[in-house]
Amino acid sequence: MQKENKIKRRGVVLLSGGVDSTTTLAIAARKGFAVYALSFRYGQRNTHELKAASALAKSYSAEKHLIIDINLSEIGGSALTTHTPVPKGGLKKSHSEIPITYVPARNTIFLSFALAWAEVLNVMDIFIGVNALDYSGYPDCRPEYIEAFEKMANLATRSGVEGEKFTIQTPLMNLTKSQIIQKGIELGVDYSMTSSCYDPDSNGISCGQCESCLIRKKGFKDAGLKDPIMYKE
Amino acid sequence: MQKENKIKRRGVVLLSGGVDSTTTLAIAARKGFAVYALSFRYGQRNTHELKAASALAKSYSAEKHLIIDINLSEIGGSALTTHTPVPKGGLKKSHSEIPITYVPARNTIFLSFALAWAEVLNVMDIFIGVNALDYSGYPDCRPEYIEAFEKMANLATRSGVEGEKFTIQTPLMNLTKSQIIQKGIELGVDYSMTSSCYDPDSNGISCGQCESCLIRKKGFKDAGLKDPIMYKE
Repeated sequence: MQKENKIKRRGVVLLSGGVDSTTTLAIAARKGFAVYALSFRYGQRNTHELKAASALAKSYSAEKHLIIDINLSEIGGSALTTHTPVPKGGLKKSHSEIPITYVPARNTIFLSFALAWAEVLNVMDIFIGVNALDYSGYPDCRPEYIEAFEKMANLATRSGVEGEKFTIQTPLMNLTKSQIIQKGIELGVDYSMTSSCYDPDSNGISCGQCESCLIRKKGFKDAGLKDPIMYKE
Repeated sequence: MQKENKIKRRGVVLLSGGVDSTTTLAIAARKGFAVYALSFRYGQRNTHELKAASALAKSYSAEKHLIIDINLSEIGGSALTTHTPVPKGGLKKSHSEIPITYVPARNTIFLSFALAWAEVLNVMDIFIGVNALDYSGYPDCRPEYIEAFEKMANLATRSGVEGEKFTIQTPLMNLTKSQIIQKGIELGVDYSMTSSCYDPDSNGISCGQCESCLIRKKGFKDAGLKDPIMYKE
C-alpha cells in the first residue's frame, strides 16, 4: 500500500517584486510549492521594489524571504546600477539591440545565489520569471540560456555528483506580457502590490516613461485590463 | 603590411591569495595578459587571505583589484561560512565524499561576477585556478563543470548574442599540487606572500591542520621544496 506523500514540494523563487516574478510566485504557490523567496539589494537606484517583494512574499506565505546584498555598481556597466540616465519614452522595435538597462550577467548572478541556497535547503526547483517574447533584448532571458544554466548547475553541485537534478522552472517563458498578466489575474494576483519602474520617485510612484513602465502599461492595455498602480505621467 | 598589435590582452583573474590562484595569476601575467584581479569578501571566518590577495595583485601590477562583498553566510551550508568547526588532522583518501568545507555553488557565484566584470571591461578571458586532481572533491572544480559554465556564459551575455566568445582559462586543471608549486617556482612566485589556511589565528598564522594546510604542506613536500610560510603546528 502506497503511503500518501504529504510533504509539500519546495521551490526557491527569484522575486523582484515586478509583474513577472510575482506571477511566477503565484504560479509556484498554485502548483503547491512551499516557497523560499529570494531577492537582491544590488546597488540599484532604489529599494522600492524590495518593499514590494517583502509584502508579496508575506502575502504568499513564503517559508522564508532572503534578501542578499550584492554590489553590482562596483562592476558598473548599466543604467540601473550607475549614474547613467534611464532612457525614457519609447519602446524598442526589435530584439537586435540590447538596451543600456541590461545589467551584465545579472540573471546568472541571481540564479547562482538561488542555486547555492537551493543546495543548502535541498530544494531541487528554482523558479525565475524570464520570458523570451517581451524580454527587452536581454540575452539571459532566452530558453537556450536557461537550459545551459541548468546543465551547468547540475555539474556544479553535490547534486550533479550524487544524482539528484535541479530544474530551472520558467513558467512564463513563452507568454507575452499581456498573457502573463491574464494568467496572474486568473490566479488572483494583486498587481497593485507590484513595482516595475526603473526610476520611481521618492514615494515609489512609477515614472510611466521608462522601458519597464512602458512594457507594463502596454501589457495591461493589450490584456484589456486596468493597471492598478499609479503613474507620474 | 600587417600592423603590429601592441595592445596587451586583458584577463580577469579570480584571486583568493592561495597557492592555486596566485600561480594562475603568475601564469596569466607571464602569458602577457594585463590582469584585472577579482576577490570576494564572502562571510568567511577571516580576511587574512584578502590581504594576501591585495599584496599579490599589487606585486603583479594588476590594472585593477576589485573586492566584492557578498554574504554567503546568510545562505549557510559550509564550515567556511558558518560556525561549524573546520575539520582538522587528516586528508581524505578519495574524491567520493564532498567535505563540509565545500561552499555551495561558490565557484559558480565567483565566475558569475567575473563574467559580469569581464563583459563590462570587454575582456574575453577569465582565469580560475581550479584543478581536478587535488581538488578536495568539490564538484565545481571539474573540467566538465568549467565547460558547461563557459557555454552558459556565452549564451548569457551580449557576447553570446553579438559573436565574441568568453574563454574560461584553467591553466592548473591537470596539475597536481606539487606540479602547481613547481610551475609557480619556475615563474618566480613568492609563496611566502600566499595564504591557504581555512582557520588562521588572529595574526594570520596558518593552523597547519585543516585540509587546505595539509594539501599545501603535502604539495611542497612532494615537490621537494620548503614551504616558506609559518604554521602553528
